Amino acid sequence: MSVVTVEVGLGDRAYEILIGPGLIARGGELIQQRLPKARCAIVTDGNVAAAHLEPLVESLTAVGNAPAVITLPAGEKTKSFSSLETVVDQIIAARLERGDAVIALGGGVIGDLTGFAAGIVRRGMNFVQMPTSMLAQVDSSVGGKTGINSPRGKNLIGVFHQPKLVLADTAALDTLPLREFRAGYAEVAKYGLIDRPDFFAWLEQNWQEVFSGGAARIEAIAQSCRAKADVVARDEFETGDRALLNLGHTFGHALEAATAYDGARLVHGEGVAIGMALAHRFSARLNLASPDDAARVEAHLRAVGLPWRMSDIPGDLPDAEALFNYITQDKKVTRGALTFILTRGLGQSFIAKDVPASEVISFLKEQRQG
Amino acid sequence: MSVVTVEVGLGDRAYEILIGPGLIARGGELIQQRLPKARCAIVTDGNVAAAHLEPLVESLTAVGNAPAVITLPAGEKTKSFSSLETVVDQIIAARLERGDAVIALGGGVIGDLTGFAAGIVRRGMNFVQMPTSMLAQVDSSVGGKTGINSPRGKNLIGVFHQPKLVLADTAALDTLPLREFRAGYAEVAKYGLIDRPDFFAWLEQNWQEVFSGGAARIEAIAQSCRAKADVVARDEFETGDRALLNLGHTFGHALEAATAYDGARLVHGEGVAIGMALAHRFSARLNLASPDDAARVEAHLRAVGLPWRMSDIPGDLPDAEALFNYITQDKKVTRGALTFILTRGLGQSFIAKDVPASEVISFLKEQRQG
Repeated sequence: MSVVTVEVGLGDRAYEILIGPGLIARGGELIQQRLPKARCAIVTDGNVAAAHLEPLVESLTAVGNAPAVITLPAGEKTKSFSSLETVVDQIIAARLERGDAVIALGGGVIGDLTGFAAGIVRRGMNFVQMPTSMLAQVDSSVGGKTGINSPRGKNLIGVFHQPKLVLADTAALDTLPLREFRAGYAEVAKYGLIDRPDFFAWLEQNWQEVFSGGAARIEAIAQSCRAKADVVARDEFETGDRALLNLGHTFGHALEAATAYDGARLVHGEGVAIGMALAHRFSARLNLASPDDAARVEAHLRAVGLPWRMSDIPGDLPDAEALFNYITQDKKVTRGALTFILTRGLGQSFIAKDVPASEVISFLKEQRQG
Repeated sequence: MSVVTVEVGLGDRAYEILIGPGLIARGGELIQQRLPKARCAIVTDGNVAAAHLEPLVESLTAVGNAPAVITLPAGEKTKSFSSLETVVDQIIAARLERGDAVIALGGGVIGDLTGFAAGIVRRGMNFVQMPTSMLAQVDSSVGGKTGINSPRGKNLIGVFHQPKLVLADTAALDTLPLREFRAGYAEVAKYGLIDRPDFFAWLEQNWQEVFSGGAARIEAIAQSCRAKADVVARDEFETGDRALLNLGHTFGHALEAATAYDGARLVHGEGVAIGMALAHRFSARLNLASPDDAARVEAHLRAVGLPWRMSDIPGDLPDAEALFNYITQDKKVTRGALTFILTRGLGQSFIAKDVPASEVISFLKEQRQG
């Protein structure tokens, strides 16, 4: 299996995403090709370090670039101000300069936090992403959004800071728990639902091969990165089209907040899966799209084993008004008006502004019972 | 006295600096002209609030835009991670969105901290600067550098985030202690020394009028903002020429660090004053410039009452090696080589790379005794 390269076209901030098996162990050479003199710090978490840190440190050391290593606790709680302060302090303590590189080795939490730290130390250092989760490979490692959570909401604090290079080691995904792989797959399906109906149909046929690994997995990840890179190149700072990438995220974030970001109940990709099904069902309720499309989305999510309705979340949920309050604190609110990503049919999503709050609340009431 | 406008030409991030008396009390109207629908939060400190908060709140309220107010303790210690967290949290708590505006009302500390917070909440909100110190009016409020201090060094953490508008109320400077006004004046003189020898000569003749207020003060501030805006427009992200603005800052920051940022001993502008004198004296020692130029700089700083040599700092300083270590932790170090802003004569400063460490240390030893 060869390595696939996806280019992210952002002018003087353009970079490559390499996708294929075994890239972590080649990290030293691949980074040195692009940033010949950069010294490195690796930021990772305890779980990922156990599985993947050694080959990366060896490959960097082999090219004469022994890295500093900063290891954090695994989990969403690490996306906090206090972890940010720790990482920033340790990068400065390692005396890295602007032209040196900070490497994120891990999933979305490590990538978002590390990118933020790299974006603010000395007002911006080189940043390299080595995503080790499905979610990070197809979503958070592409596009330059970095950040941490506020006690008042997810991802409310951060910067845009593009990486210089992304190495997506597809073999690393074999070490993931199935549930986590599956959650990341929700974002893969999302790209089909946004504007690539053929890709969605391909996934309906080939999802088992994506899960089992091999060429279909590389293909699905590459397609996802290309889809995201296209949108990001059009709208780097999310003033327009980029909001399409939030399909499923408004409902999804509200559900994550409503479950207090408790991964035992709901992880991000699962929230997105339910959110996408809800966005399609809500579009049907508003007579924008056929209920058949919503049913097809629900059927595919169910087939791969993802949750697709609120009642799939274990434990109690707050009532519809409380869920609605979580939505209004989400960052996709503009000037008090409610903005949703809705759809006119499979692969025909669009940005809907001024969605009436009353419709949202009635819909949530219905779905809470569903 | 009329209001002078300086344009900062940064493409789609271009903005205006208005300079003149009474602008704080006109804040509401001037912000509304440019950001018609933005809700506002004001970040300030206790001292500035006592002198200037009321007219600003009144002017915003008068245009139907009652602001949230976030008041912090005055002083350099406020440029910390914990203050940043407080400001970020309160902006989010006020439910401000990306299109709303965060106003910095205060000196450099408030401006740098607030700009950083505005740059990271929701990955970048509108930001308005209302600098109330001389230093902030001529330096920190122009150019988009924001940030906080690390326990390991000053301004090591931050982002580039340009304001939408700067209102420099020159009458506000009348409430400053003389020492603080004078410290800010060091940065005014700096623009002459970088590349405007005629401006420096004008200052040698007119500095008393700048201190006493009136048209000469507005003129000096406008010239300074224009000088800085020119450099920033050429090199927004400090990859080249912008480093010239650091004239006097490498030595100055080291002295600030060596005195533990104790404002009773040395404030930033005083560090810059001594740093500029040292940069000219060091240039003479390296046979780059005439000792007469260094003497002229020293004479002007002495005339206005600024410190100009290390022995002007009250209390003990660490030895030359320790001072040198503070220099190497400064952010103006690139890849281990020492970069200084030196000069070939008055108003002929340049970026000197690969300055030998041994020369710096010998020079510091000499000067420590001077």
